[in-house]
Amino acid sequence: MFGKFLPRNFNFFNMFEKQVGYAQNAADYFKELAAKNEVNSEALGKMRNIEHQADNAAHDIIEQLNKTFITPFDREDIYDLAMELDDVVDMINTIASRMMIYKLKGQDKNLIKFAAVIQESVKSVVCAVKGMRNDKSRKTIAEACVEVNRLENVGDAMRDEVLAELFETEKDPIKVIKLKEIYQDAETVLDICEDVAHVIDSIMVKQA
Amino acid sequence: MFGKFLPRNFNFFNMFEKQVGYAQNAADYFKELAAKNEVNSEALGKMRNIEHQADNAAHDIIEQLNKTFITPFDREDIYDLAMELDDVVDMINTIASRMMIYKLKGQDKNLIKFAAVIQESVKSVVCAVKGMRNDKSRKTIAEACVEVNRLENVGDAMRDEVLAELFETEKDPIKVIKLKEIYQDAETVLDICEDVAHVIDSIMVKQA
Amino acid sequence: MFGKFLPRNFNFFNMFEKQVGYAQNAADYFKELAAKNEVNSEALGKMRNIEHQADNAAHDIIEQLNKTFITPFDREDIYDLAMELDDVVDMINTIASRMMIYKLKGQDKNLIKFAAVIQESVKSVVCAVKGMRNDKSRKTIAEACVEVNRLENVGDAMRDEVLAELFETEKDPIKVIKLKEIYQDAETVLDICEDVAHVIDSIMVKQA
Repeated sequence: MFGKFLPRNFNFFNMFEKQVGYAQNAADYFKELAAKNEVNSEALGKMRNIEHQADNAAHDIIEQLNKTFITPFDREDIYDLAMELDDVVDMINTIASRMMIYKLKGQDKNLIKFAAVIQESVKSVVCAVKGMRNDKSRKTIAEACVEVNRLENVGDAMRDEVLAELFETEKDPIKVIKLKEIYQDAETVLDICEDVAHVIDSIMVKQA
Repeated sequence: MFGKFLPRNFNFFNMFEKQVGYAQNAADYFKELAAKNEVNSEALGKMRNIEHQADNAAHDIIEQLNKTFITPFDREDIYDLAMELDDVVDMINTIASRMMIYKLKGQDKNLIKFAAVIQESVKSVVCAVKGMRNDKSRKTIAEACVEVNRLENVGDAMRDEVLAELFETEKDPIKVIKLKEIYQDAETVLDICEDVAHVIDSIMVKQA
Repeated sequence: MFGKFLPRNFNFFNMFEKQVGYAQNAADYFKELAAKNEVNSEALGKMRNIEHQADNAAHDIIEQLNKTFITPFDREDIYDLAMELDDVVDMINTIASRMMIYKLKGQDKNLIKFAAVIQESVKSVVCAVKGMRNDKSRKTIAEACVEVNRLENVGDAMRDEVLAELFETEKDPIKVIKLKEIYQDAETVLDICEDVAHVIDSIMVKQA
């Protein structure tokens, strides 16, 4: 929908697709980690590598933005989109890092559930981002954004439920501190995905 | 002060008054909840309903903004004002939600005090927002913003005091975790009200 | 580099140098506090005084910005720079305040280490801000920003390490709650310094 007017700026679409690909890698790998018995330094190293690549992708977009006079959509929206996508990966990486630092052992069924919802949400974010370069994707993008919003509500309810359960059943305060933070972080990933969807929504409305 | 130049855009003033009305409803109802012995699901449902209406009001403003070429003040300020007002209601709703999830029982005198300050602050925010459409309200708005800033300082001191007391007297670490978060959230509501006042201040300066 | 084109706006450089000076004062004084056995109300009063002056400096910049039509660089960048520098001082003040509220006694070797890294990072921020008015400082600014980024990574690793140690060795959950928050806050100061560096980086790229 934008591409045809601005052939020289097609690069932003490529760059965002590359960046959102790292978000997908992070979400996929996080689901693997949640199913493991623990996060060791090798596993964390792999996640950090994804985070590092995502960082570079965001950096490239900002650098390109600063050098480009005419952009396919609002400069600020480009900036916000790059930053929010970066935050998705950062937050997933933070959770993986905390799982190791807090020496969590054994599968946690709640975290596994969160990881599945995060993967779904990021999948819809990928779909929305990839749709942006295509004139005919308006409906697909809108549906993907609705799905991201729905999954944020699912995550909200899930967090409330698992925190209530945690405070009800876990008697070790240290364990409460650790898991409470990690569950809240997991829900935050879904919040950030929703922020991404809002930016994309707003880009679409302006281009209508 | 702005109204007369931009009759077609009067709608933003109506929309912001509607939105800030939900912030007032949330603050008023939060004061009721703080005085109760517990937050049950019916009470929380009522708060969530307010939050949902506030969400729609914010959404309507952003949608209108995206469709409007000339706005009564900076687009970014309109966006920020809508987002910050939404954050006020979200944060109040989050506290109510935590009171239920954490199964807090019995009145908490500190939370009652916070709820009173929050209600005062939101009242001044309402006054500032309502003044925006009126040419003669400049002084009223400025005073309301000063009051919001003052109440944020009151809240800061209150949070410091109640946290010191909590760590001094409460020996159950699980209870410390719960109340610490809720007191800090309560103070955050006042921070967000101050952010609203800053946006309004900045709009006023630009229009001077 | 900017100064020669916009002599009338030189004031922003003076104002930012003044503001960043308070950040340096806060970081220097924080290092002193970390080395003491406790933060008493007199010591906290001194920090709050620095924070208050920094607040006024930020306020002056925003006021000037709102009154100035042509600015030496993007309005939004000026706004962001003032806000981020303010956040540096606020966060340092928050930590000092928590040290007193939580009645921390005795030197904490980890906090001393953090304070040293924070002081280094703020020193580089000062260097970058002061360089902005000078045509020949481009390389100095770039190096200072790289150093701020490096120190943020140092802080990340340090926080991970000290939190792992805290959860491993500290058996009192109340103490874990207090120190965990303070270590995370300390790392946040370095994050905010990195945000400052990003704003300055982005200003430099646009002016290239």
